[in-house]
Amino acid sequence: MASTLEMQRDVSARETGTLIGSDKVEGTAVYRSNEDRVGTIKRVMIDKLSGKVGYAVMSFGGVLGIGDDYYPIPWSLLTYNEKLGGYEVNITEDQLKDAPKLSDHENWSYEGRGRESELLDYYGTHPYW
Amino acid sequence: MASTLEMQRDVSARETGTLIGSDKVEGTAVYRSNEDRVGTIKRVMIDKLSGKVGYAVMSFGGVLGIGDDYYPIPWSLLTYNEKLGGYEVNITEDQLKDAPKLSDHENWSYEGRGRESELLDYYGTHPYW
Repeated sequence: MASTLEMQRDVSARETGTLIGSDKVEGTAVYRSNEDRVGTIKRVMIDKLSGKVGYAVMSFGGVLGIGDDYYPIPWSLLTYNEKLGGYEVNITEDQLKDAPKLSDHENWSYEGRGRESELLDYYGTHPYW
Repeated sequence: MASTLEMQRDVSARETGTLIGSDKVEGTAVYRSNEDRVGTIKRVMIDKLSGKVGYAVMSFGGVLGIGDDYYPIPWSLLTYNEKLGGYEVNITEDQLKDAPKLSDHENWSYEGRGRESELLDYYGTHPYW
């Protein structure tokens, strides 16, 4: 177990000018542009072959991990906002309501590029491959 | 806090056919091709803009995080080996001895592409940008 002091020291190792550590992304809060907190980044999904991030998984709602909903969010939509101390994502309430959702995180259904295309289309971003 | 049961359930959510969760990569053991364990993946460093993994950080040696050495390893060198249950990296003892090292993880020195080019050159891989 890392001590609090060690964790604090460790922070400087987790970000450079252009790069960010995966463990720094995980747990980072996500806000809408109106500064409402929408959720937390759970993990990023990395393409094994190309090493490119397909999407981030945002957890939303629930208490202590029970009943969370999981949303895949295209990486390109996440913009770090220093003032908010988290990612700012320009998602409207309506967009989020109908967004592709991983309602049961045991049943990971974003296999294949068909589903990923669907996701990128939904948010109006471009595929990464 | 997630229960053990929840963590077990969670594993299935951390890998798909082509994608792998960042939190599954972190903590994964790294072996040489002769099956000697060399270290553990600490984190992956992601390019904020492109969403592409620059390199993984492997910790090596030390006990309970004290005295670890940190090595940046190009993502393309990591091949998952199911039998070993970890990444197989074709690094010789000699290569590791002289490999670019982050000896003090408070002093993250892989800023800029000059240093990254150096890293990729060392391992004879190609830049990702």
